[in-house]
Formats: sequence, C-alpha cells, structure tokens
Amino acid sequence: MKEGFYPVERLNEFASRVFESCGVPAEDARRAADVLTTADLWGIDSHGVARLPAYFEMLVRGLINPRPSLRVVRESAATALLDGDNGLGLVVGPKANDLSMEKADRAGTGWVSVCHTNHFGIAGYYPFQALAREQIGWAMTNTPPLVSPLGGAERMLGTNPLAIAFPGLEGPPIVIDMSTSVVSLGVVEQASRKGRELPEGLLVDREGRATVSPGAFHEGGALLPLGGDREHGGHKGYCLAAMIDLLCGVLSGANWGPFIPPFPHYLKQPERSVGKGLGHLFGAFRIDCFCDPEELKSRVDEWRRVFGSTRPAKGSEGVLIPGDPERAAEAERRAGGVPLLPSVAAGLRELSARSGVPLD
Amino acid sequence: MKEGFYPVERLNEFASRVFESCGVPAEDARRAADVLTTADLWGIDSHGVARLPAYFEMLVRGLINPRPSLRVVRESAATALLDGDNGLGLVVGPKANDLSMEKADRAGTGWVSVCHTNHFGIAGYYPFQALAREQIGWAMTNTPPLVSPLGGAERMLGTNPLAIAFPGLEGPPIVIDMSTSVVSLGVVEQASRKGRELPEGLLVDREGRATVSPGAFHEGGALLPLGGDREHGGHKGYCLAAMIDLLCGVLSGANWGPFIPPFPHYLKQPERSVGKGLGHLFGAFRIDCFCDPEELKSRVDEWRRVFGSTRPAKGSEGVLIPGDPERAAEAERRAGGVPLLPSVAAGLRELSARSGVPLD
Repeated sequence: MKEGFYPVERLNEFASRVFESCGVPAEDARRAADVLTTADLWGIDSHGVARLPAYFEMLVRGLINPRPSLRVVRESAATALLDGDNGLGLVVGPKANDLSMEKADRAGTGWVSVCHTNHFGIAGYYPFQALAREQIGWAMTNTPPLVSPLGGAERMLGTNPLAIAFPGLEGPPIVIDMSTSVVSLGVVEQASRKGRELPEGLLVDREGRATVSPGAFHEGGALLPLGGDREHGGHKGYCLAAMIDLLCGVLSGANWGPFIPPFPHYLKQPERSVGKGLGHLFGAFRIDCFCDPEELKSRVDEWRRVFGSTRPAKGSEGVLIPGDPERAAEAERRAGGVPLLPSVAAGLRELSARSGVPLD
Repeated sequence: MKEGFYPVERLNEFASRVFESCGVPAEDARRAADVLTTADLWGIDSHGVARLPAYFEMLVRGLINPRPSLRVVRESAATALLDGDNGLGLVVGPKANDLSMEKADRAGTGWVSVCHTNHFGIAGYYPFQALAREQIGWAMTNTPPLVSPLGGAERMLGTNPLAIAFPGLEGPPIVIDMSTSVVSLGVVEQASRKGRELPEGLLVDREGRATVSPGAFHEGGALLPLGGDREHGGHKGYCLAAMIDLLCGVLSGANWGPFIPPFPHYLKQPERSVGKGLGHLFGAFRIDCFCDPEELKSRVDEWRRVFGSTRPAKGSEGVLIPGDPERAAEAERRAGGVPLLPSVAAGLRELSARSGVPLD
C-alpha cells in the first residue's frame, strides 16, 4: 500500500478500540467505528477518522456519555421520541435509525425524533442502511452554529445536513447527502491554510457584509446559507436550514440554532441551553406500502439512465448521479487504502500513544 | 377599494363558479378556489387567479378531468398511494393532504404519495391546514422541466417546491414554502418584459453556459438549481430537486424529470410518458406523538424571538421569519383587496365572457 494510505480495516479496528478504551461497550464501539470509516471510504475525509481525536477528547473529559441508557420517551406504532442520554451520536444515531426502520417494517413508515445526542457522522450513512430492507430512509441533524440566516450578521444555524437514498434494481442506489450551507467549514479552512481568497457568495464578515476573505470568517464572520445572497435564493437555504433545525431541535426538545453545544469541545460555548444536546430526525418508508419494490427500483434505474445522459454543458463533464462519486471513492479506497493527510495521521499516532491502542 | 384591487371574496367566488362551469362539483370547485386565492392573499401572485385561465383551458380541452374518481391503490395505517384520476391538482391535493392528516391522527404520522394529478397551487397551502390539527404538515410536488441539473445543458427538472409549517403558541406559525431552483420562471419573464439582464448564477443558455440574458433562457436555456454553479453549491440544489422528483414522481408512479406534462398545455410536450400525470407527496406528524404540543409551540415562539432578533447585516433590514411576509400580505389584502396586474384582470374578464360567470 502506498505511503500515507491505510487499509480501511485497520482504521476501523483502531477507531473501535479507541472508543472501547474510553468505556464504550464493544458492540457500540464497532458501530461508531463503522459510521466514521464509512466517511473515509466515501471520500468525505472531514467526517471520518480525522474526527476521532475530537470524539476521544470529549469522551475522556466526560462531555459525552460512553455508556448511555437510551430511553423511548414517547411512542406510537409509527413514531418515537428518543432521549440519547448524551451518548455518542455515532451510537445513538444508528440505534434511532434502526428503530425508525423497525417501525416502518410494521407500520409502513417510521419517524424517530432524537434529543440529547451528539454529532452523528455523515448523514448519508443512515439512509444507506435502509436500502437493504427495501425502505427509503431519511436522516437529518442540526449542528453547531456556523451559518448566518439571510440578512443577519451572526452564526445562528448549523450546516444542518439532509440525506435520503433510493434503491436501484440492476444499477446502484441514488444516495443524496447534502448540507444546507453554500460550503462546509472545511472549504474555508483549506483556503485559510493556503492563504487564498474564496469566491463571492460564500461568506459574510462579522458585520454581515459579503466577503471573500477566510480571515473575515474566522474573525466572527459566518457561512452563507445555500443560495448565498437574496437574489441568488439565500432565503431558500435559510429556510432549509431552519426546517431542519425546527424538526431536529425544536420538535425533539434538543438545543437549536445558536444554542447547540460546540464540536470539538474547545469552540465557543453557547450563551445558554434551551434543551438537551443536539437533535436528529430519522424517517423510513417501506416501499411496498407505496408501490411494488421491483417497479420502484426499475424506475430508479431509468431515472439514473435518463439523468446520466443529460446533454452536458459546454466544457463540463456532464451530470453526476448523487452517490456515484462516493461509490467510486469507496471502490478505490477499498483496493488502495484510505489516504490520510500527514496532519491527520500524526493526530492518530498521538491518539494511539494516549489511548494505548496500536495504530500500525 | 382602489382601482385595480379586487376583494378576495369576489375572486374566490369567481374562481369557484368558473370551475363549476367546467363541470367541477361545487364542493371541489370551492376547495380549488380556496387554494388559488390563498396564493393571491399571500402575495404569491404567480400562483393565484392569474392561473385560472390556464386551468380553465385545460378543463375545457379535456386535458384535466373535472370529476375524478380518486382511488386508494395501496394503503397501510400510516401510508397510502392515491391515484388522482387526472383531476385538478387543486382538488386532488387537498384530498390527499386530508388523508395524510387523518392517518396522522390515528397512527401518529401519515404519508400519502399521489400520482395521476396536476398542478396543486402553492405548496404552503397544505402544511398550513395541518396547523389547526396540532400537526406538522409537509408537502412536495414535482413540476414540468425548467431546471438543468448541474453540469447539464437541458431542462430536466421542475422547480420542485417543498413546504412545511410549525405552529406557534402566542406567536404566529412558521411557514416554509420554497422552490428548489435559484429563481422561479416569473423572475425570468419579468426581466424579459423589461428588457433587463439578470444577475449571474441564475441561468444557463442552450449550451449550458452561464448567461445573464433572459432571451437565452427562452431560446432553449434553463434555470439553475438553488446554489447555481459548482462552487456555490449548485450540486446541492440539484440534489434537492432530484429528491423531490424521486419522492413525488418515481415513488408514486407519476411522470418525473423531463417527462412531466406541461402547464399551461401549449408548452412543449415531453418526448414520452413514463407514468401517470405528475406526482405529490404529503406528510403529517401528530405533534403529541413526539412531545407536548404546548411545549412545542412555546419553543417555536422562542425560536421566532431568537431568530427575529439576530443582529442585522450592515445595510439590511434584518432576518425575516419564514411565513411572515405572506402573513403581512394577507392582512393588507384582506383589508384593501388583491391587486391584479392589468394583464391578469383582462384575462379574467375574457374568461368571464367565455364562461358566462360574472366577475364584477
């Protein structure tokens, strides 16, 4: 394997044992490691093992509960409110998602609202689990504030992602996983490191004025919601992020908006708490309650063919199908390993020394 | 009442009787007129009585069935697939929405997928109905193709809107209703009429190249999905529009993407049909299945207070709460009447002559 590349199995084993070293039960640790390394496989490097040191730190500081007692607070045949007891989002998320799929199996659809939880990794992991059950899965979460609502000069909303997946018959599934800000924090941090300006329409400074300077973001500025300014539909991105905040935070009794606790822990603490932890919402549809699953899958294949053969824009490589870049990354990385940035690899080696879990 | 302003009751009565004149049963006609004139009240002029001549034309030409027999094709306690029998979307939509709310009353949540239907008016009308039932309602629909997926040079997706609403306790509800393209067709048409260019990032020409010319749109160009180009997140707007197309069209067995029948009828017919009519998806959550409804409403009030007092961006009037502009328009128009453009009023007078229904 090339220098700087790691077999996913080794990263998975490492993450799992690091979680165990913090008191996370073995089965939960395996699940959490699976969520993390799925991000690495899919090429979403910001959400993979690069975050393991941050989770570790929060566990050893007692900011996340390694052995939560999940509690169903309200329940009907097709719905539940779950209290995650301040567990890892990587553990609470998969269990809540399982519950929504079990409810869908019995009631046709299942919706589980979750409070008192933490970061759950990549949103796309969750609906992907529903594919094998002939279900269409949904996942959303609110996240710590980085985004200004249109017209504002403050970080009030997270990058609040939304994910959903549709199974194919002969073709692969269509997997949608998107945040609701124009860009993620990672894009700003990368420009900072390289000393580059960003395009217009991504950021505002601390006065809410348009800026191309990553520095202005770090000095109290904010990301813009998807759409950017008013004439480019920034009010719509704000509405989307608000919808997810209301569904995940306000409905569940979790914190919302500017009151969501920071991740990693050393970032700015909110002024006050308005609920418990942060919040997720999981949903699932049993496909055969709506139509014949084979027919649905065959129509998804046809959708893929039609959209994949859209006449390409001049100078473009054409239209991608959501989920295909991630699947291509997975094939490459299963074979050739996961490339880790030197700084990420160094962080894992340091974590190995602290936790006593061997990395190599 | 000022010149050019019409009492909403008169527009409502006119629309209802015009629908009846086409053979729509009285109760259905009243409901359809309510959906239309709610758009006029809320200031969404493009979706109100301005569209009545187009619906009329499609009814008299036999392109829409005035007396559909709605059929539940599949059903579980919390889900249904409904065939709209090619009825008015303004009639099929409210009935499907009612069914999702009835299911939510009994099962905690209700989801109704609809095929073989037509344009359903403003998406926000539907979740607004759920507020009085202590439910959170969702509505989505796919619509005829105007938008190019990112990287494409063809109209493949509709402006596919999404709506959801959350009740307040002492404050008003938060009502989100947004399309998933950067701008609506109306914005392009207005610029055309005024001979103005549009900002960058809204349109592509027939080769998929960025353009600021409304003329280039009319000569085979397309709207861009929310986000615009790649570096501004256009792939996310494409994903959103795709999600709604897959949920509304592919799941229900309706047409999807480039195959959705045109509205009005004289626009370009799709190459082929891949399903029945267009499709909607309605959802409803019974709030007390997740939390105490009074607590939820009180948290929604607090969300409104916090976001409404976001520090304003320099030079901006601050942050709006979704649904507030529409409610302000309603108050103004209930008192002072609905302003109709001279061209819209002329269209209604012509319709009055054709249908024999008096307007004044």
